[in-house]
Amino acid sequence: MHASAGFAALASVWVVGSRKFGPGERKLPHNIAFVALGTGLLWFGWFGFNGGSALAANGAAAQAFVNTDIAGSIAMCTWLMISWWKDGKPSLVGAFTGAVAGLACITPCAGYVPTWASFIIGMAAGALCYGATKFREHMSWDDALDVWAAHGVGGVLGTILLGVFAYLSVNPAGADGLIAGNARFFGVQVGAVAIVVVYAFVMTLVILRVLDRFQPVRVPDEVELKGLDSELHGEEAYDL
Amino acid sequence: MHASAGFAALASVWVVGSRKFGPGERKLPHNIAFVALGTGLLWFGWFGFNGGSALAANGAAAQAFVNTDIAGSIAMCTWLMISWWKDGKPSLVGAFTGAVAGLACITPCAGYVPTWASFIIGMAAGALCYGATKFREHMSWDDALDVWAAHGVGGVLGTILLGVFAYLSVNPAGADGLIAGNARFFGVQVGAVAIVVVYAFVMTLVILRVLDRFQPVRVPDEVELKGLDSELHGEEAYDL
Amino acid sequence: MHASAGFAALASVWVVGSRKFGPGERKLPHNIAFVALGTGLLWFGWFGFNGGSALAANGAAAQAFVNTDIAGSIAMCTWLMISWWKDGKPSLVGAFTGAVAGLACITPCAGYVPTWASFIIGMAAGALCYGATKFREHMSWDDALDVWAAHGVGGVLGTILLGVFAYLSVNPAGADGLIAGNARFFGVQVGAVAIVVVYAFVMTLVILRVLDRFQPVRVPDEVELKGLDSELHGEEAYDL
Repeated sequence: MHASAGFAALASVWVVGSRKFGPGERKLPHNIAFVALGTGLLWFGWFGFNGGSALAANGAAAQAFVNTDIAGSIAMCTWLMISWWKDGKPSLVGAFTGAVAGLACITPCAGYVPTWASFIIGMAAGALCYGATKFREHMSWDDALDVWAAHGVGGVLGTILLGVFAYLSVNPAGADGLIAGNARFFGVQVGAVAIVVVYAFVMTLVILRVLDRFQPVRVPDEVELKGLDSELHGEEAYDL
Repeated sequence: MHASAGFAALASVWVVGSRKFGPGERKLPHNIAFVALGTGLLWFGWFGFNGGSALAANGAAAQAFVNTDIAGSIAMCTWLMISWWKDGKPSLVGAFTGAVAGLACITPCAGYVPTWASFIIGMAAGALCYGATKFREHMSWDDALDVWAAHGVGGVLGTILLGVFAYLSVNPAGADGLIAGNARFFGVQVGAVAIVVVYAFVMTLVILRVLDRFQPVRVPDEVELKGLDSELHGEEAYDL
Repeated sequence: MHASAGFAALASVWVVGSRKFGPGERKLPHNIAFVALGTGLLWFGWFGFNGGSALAANGAAAQAFVNTDIAGSIAMCTWLMISWWKDGKPSLVGAFTGAVAGLACITPCAGYVPTWASFIIGMAAGALCYGATKFREHMSWDDALDVWAAHGVGGVLGTILLGVFAYLSVNPAGADGLIAGNARFFGVQVGAVAIVVVYAFVMTLVILRVLDRFQPVRVPDEVELKGLDSELHGEEAYDL
């Protein structure tokens, strides 16, 4: 799910293009306190999302809950340490992007992998998704929320790592993965995620291009520069 | 409960009167991000409020939980569509007021009506409460949170619709409503809500008028224009 | 736990010293709406913290849940009333500090004292911690979050009051306290908290002083005046 959303987002970024900025406007998050708050609420909701997928208050739900928290935390720390080392300063927004990458990555795995695997999955998510944001910056894709880098790359990684770390002994309703000696399940996961990614990317590209013929998917420049809030919704975020 | 609060609010608006605005001040929500955040936290809490009323983690609680979410969502969408059509632009604050109207309306019904009824209740709440805000604007009542339109009108509607859609088969501790062939319960609900509304409105009016004799219920004009935060609480909301 | 954190905070305040303010900067909370929001989220989380300590959804968890809510509410009201009387105006930040004091104070007691005791504990926390903030102001300690006054003093008080109000009949896994006739447990609590407080304070002082030799625990003045967000993290909180 995160894999398809992330690659659909990448297709959208390609079709819609980069934001335009008026003089004096900057490409910065406008309120980092809200980023913190949103990440916290999201993390809390993620417990319901992953833990609730068992549809019962049982051991699988508890395992998913614990794995979710560990992977999110470890990915956040991994991202912070890499960005501190590479960029010179640890950024709060980076920490939160790392946490979301870890949460997206553990989502397919949460109820099927042992606790120790969630540490490795968190580290892998933090490192790979950090690399993906650097690649996105290098390509000048304007993906303001890093949906591709965190959800897309994180989701693909998680789907593949499920094929590596899954154990039938953790969840009898699941399957054994590569480490448990089942290379077939690993192959199925890799093949499946490749199909999902190509399908989501190509279909989104086609739908948006067709839509764009009949109803532009991007607002006119003057509306964008005046601001979508006032032009499309007739309201302004703040009246301080 | 929402019906009595909403009509008590209307009485308060009548007695206290409209806010005064200094030059340059505008009658706008000052921070729509907080409106979004507050609505989200409120919606989450509403699950505890309606789902928890069963005082047990049982089927009635699950039914109330699901009905609450559906009615809130459908009322939000209904409100958005009507306001888009009537006012030209869909507003975020409107969407949230619609959601609260739906949540207030489903509250008396949540544990007693079948799932399909919560769709109809949500639509009715979105449409009627939207009309109520237009009426409130027309009458120039200064009810900044639309407590009357959302909680009052929504609560009255919900109490009446409980009399329409209730089924003993949904909750054996409840009653059959109009559609299940029990016109008597419908009559009881209509009569009861009429008494509640008149009682809440008249008593609030009397209490506030009497209070006002001994201790004005409204601050002096100069305090209002300087701001209640600094004058009454000795603090300012922001020091950015 | 709150006792040790609070006295470690006091040691830190002594070693690190007061904040420096540039011209035009004021020693005020910069966004009281965030204080309100944070207190609400914290209070919600505290239910999990105290109620969850039973490691089961049983009667002890329910008792802890109820005691937590009562003590937080009563401490908030007590603080508001005292500050209204002493300082002339009731402040929102004061109300929240009072609530946190009550929550910190009930934490050691929550699963072991009867419901009526949580009212007394809340009142004691509100009153004593209010006095502690006044003392902190008088001493000019720059403890911006009142960690010492709310968590430290509140935590010490709670540990002692557990020795007063604990009942084996409330929680068979606990002990009887002073009122239930067990002066020994009261003595143990008083002795234990004294050791904890001295240990936390002295060890923090020693660690920070030693650390300071090798790596200053405070940023240089020019970094502080320019702002830690931009200097250390390379980002600014807002770009409104």
